[in-house]
Amino acid sequence: MIKAGIIGATGYAGGELVRLLLGHKNAEIKWFGSRSYIDQKYASIYRNMFQLIEDSCLDDNIEELAKQVDVIFTATPQGYLASILSESVLNQVKVVDLSADFRIKDVSVYEAWYQLKHASPQFLEEAVYGLCEINREKIRGARLIANPGCYTTCSILAAYPLVKEGLIDVDTLIIDAKSGTSGAGRGAKTPNLFCEVNENIKAYGVTSHRHTPEIEEQLGYAAGREIKVNFTPHLVPMNRGILVTEYASLKGAPTYRQVKEAYDHYYAKEKFVRVLDPDIYPETKWVEGSNYVDLNFKMDERTGRIILMGALDNLVKGAAGQAVQNMNLLFGEKESEGLELVPVFP
Amino acid sequence: MIKAGIIGATGYAGGELVRLLLGHKNAEIKWFGSRSYIDQKYASIYRNMFQLIEDSCLDDNIEELAKQVDVIFTATPQGYLASILSESVLNQVKVVDLSADFRIKDVSVYEAWYQLKHASPQFLEEAVYGLCEINREKIRGARLIANPGCYTTCSILAAYPLVKEGLIDVDTLIIDAKSGTSGAGRGAKTPNLFCEVNENIKAYGVTSHRHTPEIEEQLGYAAGREIKVNFTPHLVPMNRGILVTEYASLKGAPTYRQVKEAYDHYYAKEKFVRVLDPDIYPETKWVEGSNYVDLNFKMDERTGRIILMGALDNLVKGAAGQAVQNMNLLFGEKESEGLELVPVFP
Amino acid sequence: MIKAGIIGATGYAGGELVRLLLGHKNAEIKWFGSRSYIDQKYASIYRNMFQLIEDSCLDDNIEELAKQVDVIFTATPQGYLASILSESVLNQVKVVDLSADFRIKDVSVYEAWYQLKHASPQFLEEAVYGLCEINREKIRGARLIANPGCYTTCSILAAYPLVKEGLIDVDTLIIDAKSGTSGAGRGAKTPNLFCEVNENIKAYGVTSHRHTPEIEEQLGYAAGREIKVNFTPHLVPMNRGILVTEYASLKGAPTYRQVKEAYDHYYAKEKFVRVLDPDIYPETKWVEGSNYVDLNFKMDERTGRIILMGALDNLVKGAAGQAVQNMNLLFGEKESEGLELVPVFP
Amino acid sequence: MIKAGIIGATGYAGGELVRLLLGHKNAEIKWFGSRSYIDQKYASIYRNMFQLIEDSCLDDNIEELAKQVDVIFTATPQGYLASILSESVLNQVKVVDLSADFRIKDVSVYEAWYQLKHASPQFLEEAVYGLCEINREKIRGARLIANPGCYTTCSILAAYPLVKEGLIDVDTLIIDAKSGTSGAGRGAKTPNLFCEVNENIKAYGVTSHRHTPEIEEQLGYAAGREIKVNFTPHLVPMNRGILVTEYASLKGAPTYRQVKEAYDHYYAKEKFVRVLDPDIYPETKWVEGSNYVDLNFKMDERTGRIILMGALDNLVKGAAGQAVQNMNLLFGEKESEGLELVPVFP
Repeated sequence: MIKAGIIGATGYAGGELVRLLLGHKNAEIKWFGSRSYIDQKYASIYRNMFQLIEDSCLDDNIEELAKQVDVIFTATPQGYLASILSESVLNQVKVVDLSADFRIKDVSVYEAWYQLKHASPQFLEEAVYGLCEINREKIRGARLIANPGCYTTCSILAAYPLVKEGLIDVDTLIIDAKSGTSGAGRGAKTPNLFCEVNENIKAYGVTSHRHTPEIEEQLGYAAGREIKVNFTPHLVPMNRGILVTEYASLKGAPTYRQVKEAYDHYYAKEKFVRVLDPDIYPETKWVEGSNYVDLNFKMDERTGRIILMGALDNLVKGAAGQAVQNMNLLFGEKESEGLELVPVFP
Repeated sequence: MIKAGIIGATGYAGGELVRLLLGHKNAEIKWFGSRSYIDQKYASIYRNMFQLIEDSCLDDNIEELAKQVDVIFTATPQGYLASILSESVLNQVKVVDLSADFRIKDVSVYEAWYQLKHASPQFLEEAVYGLCEINREKIRGARLIANPGCYTTCSILAAYPLVKEGLIDVDTLIIDAKSGTSGAGRGAKTPNLFCEVNENIKAYGVTSHRHTPEIEEQLGYAAGREIKVNFTPHLVPMNRGILVTEYASLKGAPTYRQVKEAYDHYYAKEKFVRVLDPDIYPETKWVEGSNYVDLNFKMDERTGRIILMGALDNLVKGAAGQAVQNMNLLFGEKESEGLELVPVFP
Repeated sequence: MIKAGIIGATGYAGGELVRLLLGHKNAEIKWFGSRSYIDQKYASIYRNMFQLIEDSCLDDNIEELAKQVDVIFTATPQGYLASILSESVLNQVKVVDLSADFRIKDVSVYEAWYQLKHASPQFLEEAVYGLCEINREKIRGARLIANPGCYTTCSILAAYPLVKEGLIDVDTLIIDAKSGTSGAGRGAKTPNLFCEVNENIKAYGVTSHRHTPEIEEQLGYAAGREIKVNFTPHLVPMNRGILVTEYASLKGAPTYRQVKEAYDHYYAKEKFVRVLDPDIYPETKWVEGSNYVDLNFKMDERTGRIILMGALDNLVKGAAGQAVQNMNLLFGEKESEGLELVPVFP
Repeated sequence: MIKAGIIGATGYAGGELVRLLLGHKNAEIKWFGSRSYIDQKYASIYRNMFQLIEDSCLDDNIEELAKQVDVIFTATPQGYLASILSESVLNQVKVVDLSADFRIKDVSVYEAWYQLKHASPQFLEEAVYGLCEINREKIRGARLIANPGCYTTCSILAAYPLVKEGLIDVDTLIIDAKSGTSGAGRGAKTPNLFCEVNENIKAYGVTSHRHTPEIEEQLGYAAGREIKVNFTPHLVPMNRGILVTEYASLKGAPTYRQVKEAYDHYYAKEKFVRVLDPDIYPETKWVEGSNYVDLNFKMDERTGRIILMGALDNLVKGAAGQAVQNMNLLFGEKESEGLELVPVFP
């Protein structure tokens, strides 16, 4: 039985992690960390857990926690894990970080986009970017997993085969992304009130969203060189779900079959990546509550561009689901254990 | 392995039944019946099932189906099962009917409220009303289960202990119910369009909703005499969930503890019925996607009344979940098999 | 030109008041009071007002304000107006209070339900309860108007003719109310976040909501004696709108026509009260953005009860619209000036 | 008093036209045409109009209608107006067509994208594309106005100044658009049911949406040459509102000020076009119910691109509001008459 501790268990991603781990055959949660709710019953914060969890919330003592568990999940604000992580912790437990602290290798890029001083740059080198479909082998042996962002998971998986195979001009790549509101977290802020979000859609973080350098770094590895993209997120009046629509110019006029083969080459055996049938486009509702990413593409002869689309549940494959997938890889579990969730519709 | 067939697999309740049975260890779906979509791939209708179900939809041939499976679920319009059910079918398979055809013992009451001639009144006597928490033992030996309605499951479970224990004046019972829109089905009707439902709430079926006699019959058994209630359903702009708010005059000035003990007497050992802590009221979101019913009550000294509240997911405990629970009872499975779903939040 | 000042101009009711007054031919806003946003441009808080309002927000100095305007609207937290109101203010201007400070005549009832010490009980006597359809004549001559609550306006208007005419047993009156989320205000609280409200419905304030004594007092005047009711509000995932469903036992077996005539007697000439055709029930969407209240009723022979229904826009007839209607009465304007808004659908 | 007739008065755009014309000082509706609801009271279809409109729906007899009114609005399916329009009609009345029949000058382009044979190509030449801010002078003298599409109005107005002034490379223009569901019409179709749209976002009509050639034609005029764009619409779970996010490479490295001046040059005097302050991005909620288009842009030095954003209410500036604006121009009314609507928030 894998013993798990969660720091930040009362945010939306933390809550989803709890939901998923409850359904995992070989894992149990030993520590529900939440500085905001210390000593309060977890089920009083997340009342879906009434009669399912009797534990109360604990403080965020990572050194103490490291002695008690096998894996620590951190679903915490940017900079927090970097401020408390230590060699001794990493010597005792695996750490899966759902924040961005260890996602970006170049500390100056991190500090520029996040406007934070990085407190533990010494662990950047060893941290493995936990996009399971791409870095599976590296993940297995890691101590520290940088669990990818929600937008980035979707954006990268949609474009990866084409970038890797050189089928698109990466300098033309534009990513227009749409997210449900749980991505904004559970903090009480006026812009996230029901009445402000409902019946509304807006762009935000235009040219400056922090997932941009993460996408650029990972797709840059696939391209074999540095790339720059435009990434524009939008807030959608729904709880869960991310949809990305990406645009790029095709290189060398590939056929539908060639593009499809590129996707199949990377994803045909991937349980959680579903490349849809021709002219069926991803919708967030069809993956809700599950760990699937649905992908598809449409080529436009008129403009020479290709439109890529991807959908996932931001709290599952975009956060907690991928974190569990990483845990499974780290501990030699079946990769899909605890994640064989059928999407909930409607 | 229980072999199951579904007639009406492409309605919302049918779709939920498919989702739940996919997660059941000892059941497999052998027949996806859908007259509207014969020969179309099931996963092309419910695209959450892409790569999970390869079957195509079949016609609704119950005699043929009865030879191939152990249990038939009918999620069909009122009157349909009654028109095709036969002794030979019931001799071969268990039937769990999600429609209302066999819920009401008095055929004249059925015909008056449903405005339909009942085509198989000969099976009314043996049909067991499948409210598992109340009729568990009868269900085990039945051939034909009348799976309760969504509103009725919630309405009855909220009031049952108090009616049974004589703590309320049943002649004062008023039920004000609120439902998400999936209860209205997947048929393409203008009043169920997004723009008509969103940002709107309305009452409907006032004094005439068909779940009224079902509630009256079942609570009448608990009361030991005929009762009449007012039941008013409302349409709420959400996909899933039913909330009932019930009002009744208390009898004999019971204390909080006495009322609570009545609930505990009937539900303390029931896995799927959660009586909440004092002053915590049920919310549909906290049970979404799960088979739980959350209940609570509040006594009003000023008026001598008690307010009862209940919440469930209309597609799970209100339909497909309860149907699976019935199946488990019929086949000697663990009652919660396939139903240990943690509610999805947010 | 009526010069108006608003204290609390940046809450949702304050914002709606601004919207309505912009469309009023003979009124202009001279003071946008908002302690939270002093010196910030009003249009930076409510961006719908961009290029429509150039003013910045001012502090809440009621004495200074009283010198500059003809009418002051207060859309402020409970207790605030009572703490700053003075004879000198009332000698200079009309005051329309959208809070509850002067709605309840019996100060002990106010203090018990609001858990506040009333700071200006000396003005309770003269304050006029501003339910225009009922207190029209008293309003015209008043200095201080207690603008009714959103739930109360709807609850009272739905029941008033039947209580007044003795057609129902008032001791059996039960009010089950449903409200959009703007009624909860613009304060940043976790329970009002989009993800907490969306796909959810719940009761709150069960047996203890503060609109209860307000309803009891006003309907008590109609009944000619003290009454007690159960009032249960629910939070609905929509921005605007209140729906009430009321239950009561009929007295003396009136016919449909007799009941309808009671409504017609009081409302046939009322522009903003629409009694719908038989079997057409109020829906919040059909009055959204307007000052209308839609009403109807359904009699149930089986139980001897009548079900009353009412719908209004909580920010218009339930707050700002009624406040403008009161202003019009106070200043001899056409009562509907600025309020001839066609409901927005969909 | 302008006498108006509407063919297609019971669709969402038709309904909005009715709402707006009710508030117009110098217009009155003489004909509520609706083939689906002949002889039914209009207010029984749109119940917001109860007690406001007593008329019943009439058949669509354009020749008869032309004798009775001054202007005919057609809010009808594609191809319908072309099939009934005649020289005699145009000699008697002004026609403002909200369908696409006369928006595209090149009949072969129309027929290719709409998969329809154009039945009245002889009127294409004289039809004026009714984008008021751009074609104001031509509109005044026209007989036949092709009222622009909802997506196109927003897409064109956002890009027009930059295309016209040569500040962007038009060959790089990509338009990612998001729309509320009222744009899909009031027809009863499963994909537009509440449960299918709610909690969901999807792209549709990828590379093939019919508004593409309309955008290309109009921006082509501005560019002085043929252009091709990618236009991708998305369905958003909200009733009203369109948001467009456009991407293009800048030409000649203009400064913020230069770009802003281009917008100001075309829009500073336009009442209904609001160019927002720096770093404030359009949101659909801030224009809901009004005739405004909110615009802004953000330049990205890293990629050399500019991101353009626009928001409008698809039923107002995107349909009925613009139609009324066109009517005002045709009849010499104040252009904003009936359209001085303050956006409704929240």
